[in-house]
Amino acid sequence: MIELYDLVGANDLRFSPFCWRTKAVLAYKKIPYTTVPIRFSDKDKLAFSGQDRVPVIKDAEAVVSDSWSIAKYLEDKQPEPKIFPGLGLREACRFFNLYVDRAVHAACFPLVVADIFAKVDPVDRTYFRTSREERLGVTLEAMAAKRAENRPRVQTVLSDLEATIAEQDYFFGVLTYADLCLFGSFKWITTVSEEPLFSSTPALQAWWSRMHERLGL
Amino acid sequence: MIELYDLVGANDLRFSPFCWRTKAVLAYKKIPYTTVPIRFSDKDKLAFSGQDRVPVIKDAEAVVSDSWSIAKYLEDKQPEPKIFPGLGLREACRFFNLYVDRAVHAACFPLVVADIFAKVDPVDRTYFRTSREERLGVTLEAMAAKRAENRPRVQTVLSDLEATIAEQDYFFGVLTYADLCLFGSFKWITTVSEEPLFSSTPALQAWWSRMHERLGL
Repeated sequence: MIELYDLVGANDLRFSPFCWRTKAVLAYKKIPYTTVPIRFSDKDKLAFSGQDRVPVIKDAEAVVSDSWSIAKYLEDKQPEPKIFPGLGLREACRFFNLYVDRAVHAACFPLVVADIFAKVDPVDRTYFRTSREERLGVTLEAMAAKRAENRPRVQTVLSDLEATIAEQDYFFGVLTYADLCLFGSFKWITTVSEEPLFSSTPALQAWWSRMHERLGL
Repeated sequence: MIELYDLVGANDLRFSPFCWRTKAVLAYKKIPYTTVPIRFSDKDKLAFSGQDRVPVIKDAEAVVSDSWSIAKYLEDKQPEPKIFPGLGLREACRFFNLYVDRAVHAACFPLVVADIFAKVDPVDRTYFRTSREERLGVTLEAMAAKRAENRPRVQTVLSDLEATIAEQDYFFGVLTYADLCLFGSFKWITTVSEEPLFSSTPALQAWWSRMHERLGL
């Protein structure tokens, strides 16, 4: 059975967007797996993978890291149902993945970073605070105080996504890795934060429900 | 023969990114056409189309406006070579189009707006200045003075595109409307500005040459 090394916070909370992408692919393909919980401070437990970031999967002798590489690995391992169901769609999904990492994460990170801090394992708190405050250039508390200022940027990105999904059930018409990738990123936000993410984007909200149904998650 | 209502500046310069998208599709499909030059102040000449923006095409009795609608119209009219060559690619191209309009145009507009002003027809100058300064919130001269400050944002977007195109010949692996759409936007910048757009993005530069060769433009 596949073992997924999965980021864990306090109270066994699983919130990594990248690990959620892998779980979404596994769920869509109905591939059974178990998880190995990894805290930020457990990075040495990933040494066998030759790098220090989750997700990592172990499948018998195979070890694959990075959510995009894992998606391609799982598509080769079990082609049906396909996550790249036609010509050009693997490349289109890779572009969409890049867009989500850049546009969606960049907009959402300042909004939810203090929420994540509240949910990480106590032993990870110092690492998380130090590394994230360095990235943000301000304290977590200062960023939390700017919540109202940070919302419009998220809403701008969501309204771009809304404009696309309002006309079709999935981002590329049919369900592809583009949907699974974005699903993972929204799982990150919704597992740590009370932000009413989809209150102004009804089509995105409907897609979000549709995805949970399709994936049984 | 198809008539394309095409934005024109001084000295017959054609620089609209949206008109270039249509010209790229026509060139790719080798559909013959003539153009009707339209200045910003000639908008009343588009009244027959029920709206006031270029591009518009007239194809016998058919009148189609909006570069995306025109692309779909031309794909139906003459399916080969396809600009949406497979399942999901029309939707993926639509998403890419939205990304280009939002991310690429938003980054490039402040950098090149003063260059565009220098190239519009003299009768359009007042309209262009007034409407663009309202959008920018500063004068064209003030924006031109910030050229060095505006460059990094463009380079960030270009480096995202570079990361995608570095691994394949076209944005979705095979040539699709995604390439034609982005080609149109880069034509907008390169026809009005001396900005060395691709100096730090060699793969994008190679794609740019490849596109000119494929389109014969």
